[in-house]
Amino acid sequence: MFNVAIVGASGYSGAELASLVARHPGLNLSGCYVSAHSLDKGKCLSELYPEHTGLLDVSLLPLTNEAFADIADSDVDYVCLCTDHKVSVELAQTFLNMGKKVFDLSGAYRLKSSADYEQYYGFSHPYSQWLDKAQYGLVEWYGDSLSEAQLVAVPGCYPTAALNALKPLKQADLLSDSTIIINAVSGVTGAGRKASLNTHFCEVSLAPYGLFNHRHTPEIERYLDHPVLFTPHLGNFQRGILETIYVSLKPGVSEHQIAEAYQVLADEPLIRLKGASMPSIKGVANRAFVDIGWQQQGQQLIVTVAIDNLLKGAAGQALQCMNLASQYPHEQGLMG
Amino acid sequence: MFNVAIVGASGYSGAELASLVARHPGLNLSGCYVSAHSLDKGKCLSELYPEHTGLLDVSLLPLTNEAFADIADSDVDYVCLCTDHKVSVELAQTFLNMGKKVFDLSGAYRLKSSADYEQYYGFSHPYSQWLDKAQYGLVEWYGDSLSEAQLVAVPGCYPTAALNALKPLKQADLLSDSTIIINAVSGVTGAGRKASLNTHFCEVSLAPYGLFNHRHTPEIERYLDHPVLFTPHLGNFQRGILETIYVSLKPGVSEHQIAEAYQVLADEPLIRLKGASMPSIKGVANRAFVDIGWQQQGQQLIVTVAIDNLLKGAAGQALQCMNLASQYPHEQGLMG
Amino acid sequence: MFNVAIVGASGYSGAELASLVARHPGLNLSGCYVSAHSLDKGKCLSELYPEHTGLLDVSLLPLTNEAFADIADSDVDYVCLCTDHKVSVELAQTFLNMGKKVFDLSGAYRLKSSADYEQYYGFSHPYSQWLDKAQYGLVEWYGDSLSEAQLVAVPGCYPTAALNALKPLKQADLLSDSTIIINAVSGVTGAGRKASLNTHFCEVSLAPYGLFNHRHTPEIERYLDHPVLFTPHLGNFQRGILETIYVSLKPGVSEHQIAEAYQVLADEPLIRLKGASMPSIKGVANRAFVDIGWQQQGQQLIVTVAIDNLLKGAAGQALQCMNLASQYPHEQGLMG
Amino acid sequence: MFNVAIVGASGYSGAELASLVARHPGLNLSGCYVSAHSLDKGKCLSELYPEHTGLLDVSLLPLTNEAFADIADSDVDYVCLCTDHKVSVELAQTFLNMGKKVFDLSGAYRLKSSADYEQYYGFSHPYSQWLDKAQYGLVEWYGDSLSEAQLVAVPGCYPTAALNALKPLKQADLLSDSTIIINAVSGVTGAGRKASLNTHFCEVSLAPYGLFNHRHTPEIERYLDHPVLFTPHLGNFQRGILETIYVSLKPGVSEHQIAEAYQVLADEPLIRLKGASMPSIKGVANRAFVDIGWQQQGQQLIVTVAIDNLLKGAAGQALQCMNLASQYPHEQGLMG
Repeated sequence: MFNVAIVGASGYSGAELASLVARHPGLNLSGCYVSAHSLDKGKCLSELYPEHTGLLDVSLLPLTNEAFADIADSDVDYVCLCTDHKVSVELAQTFLNMGKKVFDLSGAYRLKSSADYEQYYGFSHPYSQWLDKAQYGLVEWYGDSLSEAQLVAVPGCYPTAALNALKPLKQADLLSDSTIIINAVSGVTGAGRKASLNTHFCEVSLAPYGLFNHRHTPEIERYLDHPVLFTPHLGNFQRGILETIYVSLKPGVSEHQIAEAYQVLADEPLIRLKGASMPSIKGVANRAFVDIGWQQQGQQLIVTVAIDNLLKGAAGQALQCMNLASQYPHEQGLMG
Repeated sequence: MFNVAIVGASGYSGAELASLVARHPGLNLSGCYVSAHSLDKGKCLSELYPEHTGLLDVSLLPLTNEAFADIADSDVDYVCLCTDHKVSVELAQTFLNMGKKVFDLSGAYRLKSSADYEQYYGFSHPYSQWLDKAQYGLVEWYGDSLSEAQLVAVPGCYPTAALNALKPLKQADLLSDSTIIINAVSGVTGAGRKASLNTHFCEVSLAPYGLFNHRHTPEIERYLDHPVLFTPHLGNFQRGILETIYVSLKPGVSEHQIAEAYQVLADEPLIRLKGASMPSIKGVANRAFVDIGWQQQGQQLIVTVAIDNLLKGAAGQALQCMNLASQYPHEQGLMG
Repeated sequence: MFNVAIVGASGYSGAELASLVARHPGLNLSGCYVSAHSLDKGKCLSELYPEHTGLLDVSLLPLTNEAFADIADSDVDYVCLCTDHKVSVELAQTFLNMGKKVFDLSGAYRLKSSADYEQYYGFSHPYSQWLDKAQYGLVEWYGDSLSEAQLVAVPGCYPTAALNALKPLKQADLLSDSTIIINAVSGVTGAGRKASLNTHFCEVSLAPYGLFNHRHTPEIERYLDHPVLFTPHLGNFQRGILETIYVSLKPGVSEHQIAEAYQVLADEPLIRLKGASMPSIKGVANRAFVDIGWQQQGQQLIVTVAIDNLLKGAAGQALQCMNLASQYPHEQGLMG
Repeated sequence: MFNVAIVGASGYSGAELASLVARHPGLNLSGCYVSAHSLDKGKCLSELYPEHTGLLDVSLLPLTNEAFADIADSDVDYVCLCTDHKVSVELAQTFLNMGKKVFDLSGAYRLKSSADYEQYYGFSHPYSQWLDKAQYGLVEWYGDSLSEAQLVAVPGCYPTAALNALKPLKQADLLSDSTIIINAVSGVTGAGRKASLNTHFCEVSLAPYGLFNHRHTPEIERYLDHPVLFTPHLGNFQRGILETIYVSLKPGVSEHQIAEAYQVLADEPLIRLKGASMPSIKGVANRAFVDIGWQQQGQQLIVTVAIDNLLKGAAGQALQCMNLASQYPHEQGLMG
């Protein structure tokens, strides 16, 4: 049994993760924290999320100095940071210094290059020596390096979908040099729980955002090792990401070669290869699966991939990483 | 041609009203104002509402002292207040003192009794002498008193639906003494444009609110002269109100008597009597009609009424009132 | 381990039940059947429901004479009928004659009176002797009679919500004689999977239906032993039922008495008593809970109750009944 | 005043067109027809579309032999075919032979090559001599040829958006030879009113369809004169199309050149050029505008275009064509 503290538990990713941990037979939810200034402190998590009444009737604790001291002295094994990258970048160090294993759901430690942080995140990374040590938590591809990692950078939701869809093709050397175009649509939970006009019920409407400069672009390019043009959209649904990916194949690549390439994922419990059948948001919402379909015409290949942005993309993937750290099967608690 | 200034033009009611005025052949949109502290000041209204690009490419002016002076000196005929009742209560006086006709879309002058303001609005009305002078802008019922009114209290969205549905029965003396139960569901535009967790895309879900103490209860009871139990719900759609109303009839009331009672509305251009066919949100969204249907079983009568909360309930009704003040047909600009 | 056959497995209730049985450690999904004429026969259930890929990759078998013979000879313990009441009325007899325990999710055996079938279902019940023998599967209230029942009539979705919300008050003798008004809104899964204009994405819109004559009216009245006026609406969401119930209390009933009355459900694992906090669709969607809240003003009491129409109302409740027949805790497989 | 008959008036495009014609001061709605076998024959159009009560209280007439004779003898000027292409291909000839001007909203006469009909529509076009004579009704580009046309092929909804977005770039010779990628999402009205599982409220979910072989591909390529890879998706909203288009520019094309290219559309009343501001579905739903935005990075250009698929894409565009035939401004009746 391992003890888990969640920081930023009041947000969508944090609450989802809390619910996964609370139901996990081998993990214990030892504390749910929010910022010391949060208006939610002291509230019951299930008051914010009535669907979790009975499961998450736990208080949201303010992350005060006393709380830090409590965590340091406690038998907490894993600290999950469901916080903004600006908060995570410091908190990660604090908890690492306590000797805790840290699972950061933000982008604070995902990239490997300080220059990328300056370009895409707009700050000079103060702990760049940790960029190499942090392990990228894409379990299906980097699982071996995760069980011993002190700091796991849990992948972004869009890259989780894109990388699982594209790395098989890259690994099998089927990609031409052309830029891959990734047209992505995310549900509104991806924009977070904070009230804003962007997420107002009457303002949400399918539209693109973040053209040419979204932070997930360098993350995908780094772990795919291939140039991409990534264009996200906000869609009018709550959960899920659908990516329609336009790939230019090397000349002569056959249908069989593509199918073979995807076989590398065939035994992954959370990956569902659908061949020519196209994934949909409905097929993955409220589930931890990655659905991948593809169709080819000559050198043109369209790959479609769908995930639940919270349940595979953020919280679920953090759980996979904790499972590996705990020597549990990585999919434990996610197949329900 | 009459000149119209709109205060609070950045909200849903204000912008809807601006679009109606801008298209009206006999009205001129002379100014769109927001609070002097609003972050929207100086923006183009169509920047906030891209659907109105081309129609509402007008600047949102801050309501500074200079602006007040400008309006006072101008040939503005009508000032429409699309502001919170706390703001409207004072602004109405300011513009009345300038000699303008004021159309207030808030509840600041709808009730007739100071006691009701204390109970339901929580404040002692500072201009209670105006409660009698203000005319209630339910055009289908009080049209005669509106053409000369200096201050029109434009009805609430829920009462607009309820009163049109119930006043025919009251007038025909078909109601038993029992409390009428009004189960109402409103779209999210009814909660306003301000960002809040309540209106977050992922938080909206059919649920009741304001049990036993909603401010529209005394408004309905005052103008119906009958006790009601009014229970609003927030529904997961953008525009529209549906009210399912449970009425106890006097013994022996016949189907024919009910149909006769509703004949009082038969010639009203914005009222559509649907008999036993039930209204729906879809039938009224983006339109200025009031759809009314009913079915009877013995002394039980179920009346269902639907309106678009903005286009009949708030902005549209304000336009009806301005039409009357201008000697235009009250439905002008609303039949499109 | 008990073996379960599901007839009508391609519909929403059937597929939901199949997914519950497939995940249940003490039940075995031994066969999924559809009508011999269904266009879905031979298809994989997860082809119809891609969200269940991996879990329900089972063929939909046509219910031919051979299939009947196979089931009769097999070790199937429970047959679940997820079929229309006209189909269920006969199929139940067929499987009872094989000695199977039958769990019927339709209304074919819920009422106790032939007259009610004539009035509300429009047919003369051919097996009226079974109306007494059938047990009504509202587990929280009739659990004791269910473990040995040969034929269980699984309650309707609306009555499941209404009866759990109202029986505590009836049992505590707090209700006046007045008719209780139940205003109910159901998600579209409640209308079934069959393609029709009513369930077309562009036609669905909040509206009432079935005024005064819905088949769930006599079902609620029979098991509540109190007159109700039940008015269902179709709402624009997929899953869930919200009922806002207007109750007239006996004079002098106190807040405390009401709270006491609901204590009868306090230990029920699938019931969540929320006191003055109001349930919402969001709080129960994709879960098997019944959320009940209430607020009182004098003799007026408003009770709000929400369930997931499939996961508590149909399939989940059938699973509760099979759990009882199997001597398992009735909530097993439903707390996830 | 010109007289308009609409065939297929019960569908979404037909009803929308009927409502436009009914409100148009220079057009008269002389008859609304459905198939002689339709279950809707004899019904009132506003019974199917309650939102149009008062406006469209007209009977749906069966298109019997008598009806054909009536139309032939009548003073109907324009016949609008809101029918499937298999039906339109014959009906167009019938009405042309009567000397009527025909506006066909299907794809029956849009393409110029018999081979394309065989490949994409699966039939050998029986009136291929008319493929040259039919005029393609993209008003903003081919308006001059439309006023005298006997047969107008009203463009498809997806091509309407794509061509308006891309023809300015093509005309200014800014496109490289690379295939243009068009990622499109349509609301469900685009799939028609016929009940089907695809349009069931609970089945609709963002997903791609028609990969590599959608009938709008050759239509776009023909009128753009450039290769495209067009991938449509069904989205979970009712009205609107959003296309995110990935263009490869010739080397050295400047921001200024792109802005200049779009100036060709600057005076078009239904086109709204938004520059770097991105269109959304919300901005165009229930309106007849084409919103176009773009952002460039080197040779990569992303163009986003949004229309209402019914109000600009089908019915609205047919109205534009009839306006031209009538010597009215093409946007008349569409600016509301």
